[in-house]
Amino acid sequence: MSAPLRVALLGCGTVGSAVLRLLDEQAGDITARVGRPVEVAGVAVRRPDRHPGVPAGLLTTDAHALVTRDDVDLVVEVIGGIDPARELMLAAFAAGKSVVSANKALLADDGVALHAAAAEAGVDLYYEAAVAGAIPLLRPLRESLAGDQLTRVVGIVNGTTNYILSRMAETGAGFAEALAEATELGYAEADPTADVDGFDAAAKAAILASLAFHTPVTAADVHREGIAAVSATDVARAAEIGCTVKLLAICEKVERGGRGGEGGEGHGASVAVRVHPAMIPTSHPLASVGGAFNAVFVEAEAAGQLMFYGQGAGGEPTASAVLGDLVAVARNRVAGVAGPGTTAYAGLPVAPMADTPTRYHVSLDVADVPGVLAQVAQEFAAHDVSISTVRQDGSGEAATLVIVTHRAPDAALSATISALRGMPAVRAVTSVLRVEGLQ
Amino acid sequence: MSAPLRVALLGCGTVGSAVLRLLDEQAGDITARVGRPVEVAGVAVRRPDRHPGVPAGLLTTDAHALVTRDDVDLVVEVIGGIDPARELMLAAFAAGKSVVSANKALLADDGVALHAAAAEAGVDLYYEAAVAGAIPLLRPLRESLAGDQLTRVVGIVNGTTNYILSRMAETGAGFAEALAEATELGYAEADPTADVDGFDAAAKAAILASLAFHTPVTAADVHREGIAAVSATDVARAAEIGCTVKLLAICEKVERGGRGGEGGEGHGASVAVRVHPAMIPTSHPLASVGGAFNAVFVEAEAAGQLMFYGQGAGGEPTASAVLGDLVAVARNRVAGVAGPGTTAYAGLPVAPMADTPTRYHVSLDVADVPGVLAQVAQEFAAHDVSISTVRQDGSGEAATLVIVTHRAPDAALSATISALRGMPAVRAVTSVLRVEGLQ
Repeated sequence: MSAPLRVALLGCGTVGSAVLRLLDEQAGDITARVGRPVEVAGVAVRRPDRHPGVPAGLLTTDAHALVTRDDVDLVVEVIGGIDPARELMLAAFAAGKSVVSANKALLADDGVALHAAAAEAGVDLYYEAAVAGAIPLLRPLRESLAGDQLTRVVGIVNGTTNYILSRMAETGAGFAEALAEATELGYAEADPTADVDGFDAAAKAAILASLAFHTPVTAADVHREGIAAVSATDVARAAEIGCTVKLLAICEKVERGGRGGEGGEGHGASVAVRVHPAMIPTSHPLASVGGAFNAVFVEAEAAGQLMFYGQGAGGEPTASAVLGDLVAVARNRVAGVAGPGTTAYAGLPVAPMADTPTRYHVSLDVADVPGVLAQVAQEFAAHDVSISTVRQDGSGEAATLVIVTHRAPDAALSATISALRGMPAVRAVTSVLRVEGLQ
Repeated sequence: MSAPLRVALLGCGTVGSAVLRLLDEQAGDITARVGRPVEVAGVAVRRPDRHPGVPAGLLTTDAHALVTRDDVDLVVEVIGGIDPARELMLAAFAAGKSVVSANKALLADDGVALHAAAAEAGVDLYYEAAVAGAIPLLRPLRESLAGDQLTRVVGIVNGTTNYILSRMAETGAGFAEALAEATELGYAEADPTADVDGFDAAAKAAILASLAFHTPVTAADVHREGIAAVSATDVARAAEIGCTVKLLAICEKVERGGRGGEGGEGHGASVAVRVHPAMIPTSHPLASVGGAFNAVFVEAEAAGQLMFYGQGAGGEPTASAVLGDLVAVARNRVAGVAGPGTTAYAGLPVAPMADTPTRYHVSLDVADVPGVLAQVAQEFAAHDVSISTVRQDGSGEAATLVIVTHRAPDAALSATISALRGMPAVRAVTSVLRVEGLQ
């Protein structure tokens, strides 16, 4: 057996320490799979005194020196965030080291430049752990589906919000109450903004869209709405129409000015990438994805519908994805090659949310007077929005209207809602939520 | 752009013609993804007159001459079966060509020798399409999970039997009736033996077990039971205990003489690979996989539970998997390398079915006389089989006993059933089926 491949580990929190432990426990297997032993050359941390489990000789505070050391072959970056991760990654590439990262924020922010730097250096940049934790997803998109045309990727990619929405559905609780429970149980962080407001899911959506459509998409391109405005009423209304509320990351190929999904001829196509809560039918494969699990639904022209399901977070599951990538880049290093990079040749434009076709569910309290349904229907028609179903429940002098639309540009739908709010016959708009996955 | 890579296509049935069409339709995308154009050098078929859609200049009946031609870089084998596919594949390797195959029977029969031949020639052998059609599954097992320890792979990998069992559950029909319907609708072949008797699933199980456990497993190593003996009573009994009947392909790491699944330290471990119908709880993610869909559930020590879902058969879905592999081997050819091969370093023994731990559901008609439950329970105890639940329904002078056991070696369970059949108090054993996935 030849000389070991040596790994610089950047960061040693939950994921990093799981990576260290699994590398040690599986040393024999990893050697057999790679063809050479893989050992840790050093671990860069901010506070060495906080890592009593790591041999002191491995610990360093100088991450830059570590990644450029001659005796380091591969770099694992699990510190997260933009800086200093970006600079360290670029330094690693410049020094000829391949990088495995779990850094969704950085990849979503600057993926194109990082891929270009890796390609120029002839090294690998793999980051399976950045999206949907342990679920093998990016490699299938990059490689298994490389002979197909993807039309849509729809995922539950944030466990915290999925836990909160699952609890709201199970208990009837409102958002604040379910968030408090999630925080208490450790499913939500003390500052839950990144999860609850959809930033985490938006970064993952940008990465998924980039790979699925061979097009550069950054987090800033993603239309983002969190779940803080989802009410117990929304969840109850969803149940009434056989749906459940999920925070979805949706990446679609859409014909400009046309319908999403099915088309995708490539001519005049654009990509629409968005994160928002939506009602989906309980019969949809994503509907039963509960608690902290993640799942991603993929539609491709030849393959049809695919789904990938598993644990989206946590030290061990994330470390599994990191180590899978580490074995891959180590094999490539042994073979003296770089693996397939990503391509962004399609360069499709990103469609603004206003033009993206969506469907709405709207629930209204209206005065129970003759002609109110006609007035409401007229407002939808005036905005060129076609109605799919209406249910009217009368109760004394008030009535409830529950309307589900067909697909229409999102701007037309939101303009319709604004107009409804101004109608004298409409006492209140009690629930507005997009609907996905209905036939 | 440099010279095209040239592909020899062996076979032009449903899958082959979909491959041809998609290669043509996606020529621009595939060129961008590979870095060089990919074009068809020739198509080997038995009866050229039956392929009017293929340019006559491409058609040949001499597959051997085609795969060894100097102007051929890559070979796609979609003729299926053992011969002449094996000889053609070996000839391709010897001539330095990488091969993409959809041939589960051949890979399950002779995978080790074929991988060795590919490795010796420094070329690729990829066969994502051989198991679970369009679902990216083999690449995740070979690569994404290469840094983890797999403990169990459980799949619905045969669409025909899944369709038949789904219809039996929906309509209450017996096996023969549901098979007749499936044949009429084209879901079952005129000779359904390969599907119904579990040969197809067993070949796929052998491939999955080989990759999951880095151990050579052939179809002959797989314990195989088909669905022909599944009765309407079995399906009804399953529903009564909150279960549904599926034909499962199950690959587990088991401790010798011990329990399956969780353990898997590697010391004293063996692999158990089996295909048989089983009851699974309706809450299990595999339970809702209906009709012709496939799904595979994977458990790994660090990643936890994963599921992969999609279309398991059909021309276009299978062609999607073939083309994904074709892009991969073409990229490798452009880079002048071979991709990671498979490893069989673990070389674990295959456990005989008799030693494999399973659970049984048993339904008995018994005489409703005092002491019959005690007699039956004594028979289980005598074989060292622990009972999980018993339900007794009396009706006049007869009663029904429904028993679910804990895990025990399969031989002990089948010996118990034989003994029960000989007991005077047992009028009939009305249903015996294994149970999987119960807590």
